[in-house]
Amino acid sequence: MNLDAYRIADEPYYRPVGNEIELFAAAYSDRLPVMLKGPTGCGKTRFVEHMAWKLGRALITVACHEDMTASDLAGRFLLAPEGTVWHDGPLTMAVRQGAICYLDEIVEARQDTTVVIHPLTDARRILPLDKKNELVPAHPDFALTISYNPGYQSAVKDLKESTKQRFVAIEFSYPDAATEAAIVVREAGVDEKTASLLVAIGERSRNLRGHGLEEGASTRMLIHAGRLVAAGVDIRSATQSSIVLPITDDLEMRDALTGAVAACLP
Amino acid sequence: MNLDAYRIADEPYYRPVGNEIELFAAAYSDRLPVMLKGPTGCGKTRFVEHMAWKLGRALITVACHEDMTASDLAGRFLLAPEGTVWHDGPLTMAVRQGAICYLDEIVEARQDTTVVIHPLTDARRILPLDKKNELVPAHPDFALTISYNPGYQSAVKDLKESTKQRFVAIEFSYPDAATEAAIVVREAGVDEKTASLLVAIGERSRNLRGHGLEEGASTRMLIHAGRLVAAGVDIRSATQSSIVLPITDDLEMRDALTGAVAACLP
Amino acid sequence: MNLDAYRIADEPYYRPVGNEIELFAAAYSDRLPVMLKGPTGCGKTRFVEHMAWKLGRALITVACHEDMTASDLAGRFLLAPEGTVWHDGPLTMAVRQGAICYLDEIVEARQDTTVVIHPLTDARRILPLDKKNELVPAHPDFALTISYNPGYQSAVKDLKESTKQRFVAIEFSYPDAATEAAIVVREAGVDEKTASLLVAIGERSRNLRGHGLEEGASTRMLIHAGRLVAAGVDIRSATQSSIVLPITDDLEMRDALTGAVAACLP
Amino acid sequence: MNLDAYRIADEPYYRPVGNEIELFAAAYSDRLPVMLKGPTGCGKTRFVEHMAWKLGRALITVACHEDMTASDLAGRFLLAPEGTVWHDGPLTMAVRQGAICYLDEIVEARQDTTVVIHPLTDARRILPLDKKNELVPAHPDFALTISYNPGYQSAVKDLKESTKQRFVAIEFSYPDAATEAAIVVREAGVDEKTASLLVAIGERSRNLRGHGLEEGASTRMLIHAGRLVAAGVDIRSATQSSIVLPITDDLEMRDALTGAVAACLP
Amino acid sequence: MNLDAYRIADEPYYRPVGNEIELFAAAYSDRLPVMLKGPTGCGKTRFVEHMAWKLGRALITVACHEDMTASDLAGRFLLAPEGTVWHDGPLTMAVRQGAICYLDEIVEARQDTTVVIHPLTDARRILPLDKKNELVPAHPDFALTISYNPGYQSAVKDLKESTKQRFVAIEFSYPDAATEAAIVVREAGVDEKTASLLVAIGERSRNLRGHGLEEGASTRMLIHAGRLVAAGVDIRSATQSSIVLPITDDLEMRDALTGAVAACLP
Amino acid sequence: MNLDAYRIADEPYYRPVGNEIELFAAAYSDRLPVMLKGPTGCGKTRFVEHMAWKLGRALITVACHEDMTASDLAGRFLLAPEGTVWHDGPLTMAVRQGAICYLDEIVEARQDTTVVIHPLTDARRILPLDKKNELVPAHPDFALTISYNPGYQSAVKDLKESTKQRFVAIEFSYPDAATEAAIVVREAGVDEKTASLLVAIGERSRNLRGHGLEEGASTRMLIHAGRLVAAGVDIRSATQSSIVLPITDDLEMRDALTGAVAACLP
Repeated sequence: MNLDAYRIADEPYYRPVGNEIELFAAAYSDRLPVMLKGPTGCGKTRFVEHMAWKLGRALITVACHEDMTASDLAGRFLLAPEGTVWHDGPLTMAVRQGAICYLDEIVEARQDTTVVIHPLTDARRILPLDKKNELVPAHPDFALTISYNPGYQSAVKDLKESTKQRFVAIEFSYPDAATEAAIVVREAGVDEKTASLLVAIGERSRNLRGHGLEEGASTRMLIHAGRLVAAGVDIRSATQSSIVLPITDDLEMRDALTGAVAACLP
Repeated sequence: MNLDAYRIADEPYYRPVGNEIELFAAAYSDRLPVMLKGPTGCGKTRFVEHMAWKLGRALITVACHEDMTASDLAGRFLLAPEGTVWHDGPLTMAVRQGAICYLDEIVEARQDTTVVIHPLTDARRILPLDKKNELVPAHPDFALTISYNPGYQSAVKDLKESTKQRFVAIEFSYPDAATEAAIVVREAGVDEKTASLLVAIGERSRNLRGHGLEEGASTRMLIHAGRLVAAGVDIRSATQSSIVLPITDDLEMRDALTGAVAACLP
Repeated sequence: MNLDAYRIADEPYYRPVGNEIELFAAAYSDRLPVMLKGPTGCGKTRFVEHMAWKLGRALITVACHEDMTASDLAGRFLLAPEGTVWHDGPLTMAVRQGAICYLDEIVEARQDTTVVIHPLTDARRILPLDKKNELVPAHPDFALTISYNPGYQSAVKDLKESTKQRFVAIEFSYPDAATEAAIVVREAGVDEKTASLLVAIGERSRNLRGHGLEEGASTRMLIHAGRLVAAGVDIRSATQSSIVLPITDDLEMRDALTGAVAACLP
Repeated sequence: MNLDAYRIADEPYYRPVGNEIELFAAAYSDRLPVMLKGPTGCGKTRFVEHMAWKLGRALITVACHEDMTASDLAGRFLLAPEGTVWHDGPLTMAVRQGAICYLDEIVEARQDTTVVIHPLTDARRILPLDKKNELVPAHPDFALTISYNPGYQSAVKDLKESTKQRFVAIEFSYPDAATEAAIVVREAGVDEKTASLLVAIGERSRNLRGHGLEEGASTRMLIHAGRLVAAGVDIRSATQSSIVLPITDDLEMRDALTGAVAACLP
Repeated sequence: MNLDAYRIADEPYYRPVGNEIELFAAAYSDRLPVMLKGPTGCGKTRFVEHMAWKLGRALITVACHEDMTASDLAGRFLLAPEGTVWHDGPLTMAVRQGAICYLDEIVEARQDTTVVIHPLTDARRILPLDKKNELVPAHPDFALTISYNPGYQSAVKDLKESTKQRFVAIEFSYPDAATEAAIVVREAGVDEKTASLLVAIGERSRNLRGHGLEEGASTRMLIHAGRLVAAGVDIRSATQSSIVLPITDDLEMRDALTGAVAACLP
Repeated sequence: MNLDAYRIADEPYYRPVGNEIELFAAAYSDRLPVMLKGPTGCGKTRFVEHMAWKLGRALITVACHEDMTASDLAGRFLLAPEGTVWHDGPLTMAVRQGAICYLDEIVEARQDTTVVIHPLTDARRILPLDKKNELVPAHPDFALTISYNPGYQSAVKDLKESTKQRFVAIEFSYPDAATEAAIVVREAGVDEKTASLLVAIGERSRNLRGHGLEEGASTRMLIHAGRLVAAGVDIRSATQSSIVLPITDDLEMRDALTGAVAACLP
């Protein structure tokens, strides 16, 4: 299995918000591990795809979850006709062949998963495969990136200090209104007026954050609404389906949100 | 294994309540993932069967539960004479061959199950099979639908924000009295008078919701009562068996319900 | 493996208390799933055996418990010389070949067990075997019955609403004194006087329920006492062994019970 | 594998305290399941060995524990050169070949273990082996006996009512002084005077029960002390090692016990 | 596999503190199971090695831990070319071939581990291997010894009464000053003056026990300090490294300990 | 598999802070187990690499985590064409062939992992492989080193007293300003002025420890900032990315830190 399936052929659309492209490039030039911090749906995954394309590297993305074990990352023995055969996991494949490995929402994973990356993130740059007593030295092109949503962390589930401090962090948040409207136009295929309307709705919903709403509408949700509009759904139904209903189950909050949406519509 | 067993030959009976058919069709035209929100037994499963039939797609339904793992969805290696052989799970089969995959009550599943659908629900539309290092690109016909009952969710078990906001939501509730009576007539094979009686009983029970009753009688329960009547059981026994006894174990509540039923009967 | 071992050759003795036989027959005629509600030891298992015999169907009984998984019901792959071979579980065998499947105390089972029966209990009447991607359509003779003891349920362990409302319920309780005495005479082989004595003792113990006793003596316990008497044990020792000692470990409660028993004895 | 290894060649020494031998024999004559209730170390295991010898039956004893599963009792598939082969567990062996099966401290086991015995303890007398879809009818000689120490049970770990009421109970406690001294003489090989001394010490320790001591000295501990004396250890060291040190880690309680012992010694 | 690797060739150095050697020998002469009670690092392991050597028996030591299962002790089936082959665990090897089996800190193990030794510690002296339906009668030379540190036990983790009372207990504590100094001289290779200094430091630390320190310095730690001195480290650094730093992480306690050490040094 | 891959060819850069090199060498000369105590990122891993190089020994490092089992350290049976074959784990390889084994953050591991090292850390110096009944005597060159961060330990997760007291401890903390600046110059490739600036920032952040910050900036983080500067990032962005963002998610704390950083910058 080689990395070809993990190469990105076409430039993924990404509009920079600050100096994140330069920071990532500088960190990669020294192979420093990078942590992308920020709320869900604001473009972290798209950004890392963009950077992998820009730097000409394959990208192996792993969505972490609480049942993921170190073996899911590093690999395992499988039974073949000739006996048990080692099978590289996605992290090992990236380390051995030289891809950027992106561990999405790593804080969800069990601790063995976070510990397995320690020797990859200091001067050693090795991945010990304890189960087969192999030390895999990292390919020169290999680099590690993780994402981290500070709003999600609870006391019981947080990255260990000894993990956090191994990473250089880049912060993400929602783009400014003009940038976000341009993104919606491009991704949803709606006109600028509809896009601006949706962005205004998004901002209203984000202002309700902390007043009973866990998170406001993400850029992704605005794009969803735009796409439904482009497919012929009226904008009231489209925003109800794409923004209001997914964001809350609370009836009062839903009324507040519906009102906020209505106030934006012509 | 191909999709033929999952195609729906005859139109499943479904009476629309609002614009849910148009919304679903618009979302499917853009392959946006859809979340069906609403109480149990109000027709969500029937609706998705109807839409799969209408759109001419195979439908793979998976009833989620708390012991379901990502492997149950994605697939696993099985031991065959020639060694371990990969076996596509129901989600992978839908992704690869182009079916609508319906994950019923996804919130019951463990988080690894919900995370596995993330790369299928954004621009990437891929399913990474980490265990065999394969990236399965979604078939153009593939789409994902989930169901979600907001009344069931507790603090410990809810969809993550980063999952919820990937879906366009369509809301379901019990049909109005006339529609529900028509459904009962058709599904239970009783006359309109009996159906109306049962619908009136159903509405009374729903009014008790929040006053000691977790949920009122669903349309499904009214159909059950109707079928027992059609099979010769008197209506008092039929409603007792189909509605009162299954709905509550509390003696006071049962008396209240029995009284409410008696008040409706001639 | 066929169903012959699960057919009931001789009529199991059962004395009806109400219209439960007619209700069960009506539900079965329409293949509606049935829930038997009632305390332990009052004849639910015997009733379902009687109905299976009456309806001429094989009966597959599964005693549920908290370590039971969906695979225990549906089946699993076993390793054979020619590789892994699928082995139908008891539920699949009932579905495929057309038996009545009786899931005893289903509330004890893990949720994956209860969810696996959902598509069998609505219009679909199919059993999806996700692990082998097979949809097993239910045999026309197949029907599902479960038992449920409301007194046992706690907040943490109850059937989900979406499961409960799929069933038509039949309620059971202890038979009246004359019926119960007739049952004891027949099952224990004692004379009517002894049987009446034991039934009187049983009723006294049931009156203590809620006054420190979790449950009173069941019909089964009265039969046990009768059998010991028939085997030559004096009635005081027999009731002490069969009723008092199994029912409580509390010394005060035991004295109260022993007193209640003594008051009944000549 | 046959039952020969489980037959008891020589009469196990047992001194009856009440009518327990007659009760057990009567229950066995009707194959009623028996529960032996009483504190640890008072001879329940020896009693069931004695009864198995007296009734001429093989005895299969299983010490239950919280990690024991139904498979440990019923059996499992093992991998052999010709594929997976079923291997009867100890309970299945007893059921199939006709032994008395003694489940020691069954309350320690997980619930699946207790549920597996239900169909063996009612009129059905069958053991369903769900994993191989076999119904094993009980051999006519098969009977089930369990032990149960009421003092140990906590709220979280108790036999279910539906399990308890399937058994006829026989109660055990420490023998009277003369009987216990005779047991110590025989089992430890000491003279009557030493035995009486040890029995007096045992009684003193049992009086401390509830005053800081969870349990007093069992007959088994008195025999241990007697054996050390017979092996040349002085009686003060012997009782300290066999009774005081094992019974408590609390320094005050230890002083009280040591004082109580000293008061008995000449 | 035979016991030769488990025989002890040279006399392990052990200085008796009381009549523990005679007590152990008397218990072994009757094969009574022995429990060694006492704090960590005071010589229990060395004592049992000494006794095994003195009695001419092989010694199989198992360090228990909370993830240890009954299979780790009793044995398991392993896959070999000719199918699954049984492999005796360390306890079974001791039982079958006649070694002393020493279960170190047995209270750490799961309950199935403690229950598996019950039939070995009463008149039966058998080890039932339920998984292969074998009853292994104990070799005449077999005896069981366990260690138990009362200071460690918590409410949630203690030996069951029914386990404790099967053992004859021998109590251990730190040796008196002269004996301990002699042990340090011999084991660390330092002169008597240094040894006395270290013993004085050890006693001071033990006086702090209960005043913020969980345990004082054990004999083992004094030997460690002595060895560092013998290797050229100054005594202040040596006691800091071997006693103060390992014993506490609390800064105040560390200062108190450092002061206590300084007060002893010349 | 031999130790060659674990030998360190070039001298790892390490600046001693106290007498840690002499202490480690003395402990190794007597093969005493060593515990390195201190906060994360202050050079413990680098130190043990330096010592392994200085002493001419191979170094096998294992990053411990809460899902690590004793088998991960000791080894396991793997399925090969000729049946199951034993595979030494990293600890067994070190013991058998004579490497220094470094268990990093051992307190994270489950207790079975810590217990497995007990017989390696006393006079026995053996590793019992219970699963294959082998006693592996330690190679004369073998020694054990563990790391331990006292600040991390909670009540539920701490080394057992009986483990702690088996180790000689060496304490680590951040180097003094001049030493730390020299390290940053060498490792990050920045000039002395920048290095001093970063060290000053590090000290300020450490002063905030206990005032809302769990840990201050480690030397590692200062090197990260230096590297970004060397790669062309301005120092404000570099310290923000390398120090402020990874250290805290709290907005107030972040402002305080940013202020502290700004106060240091020219």
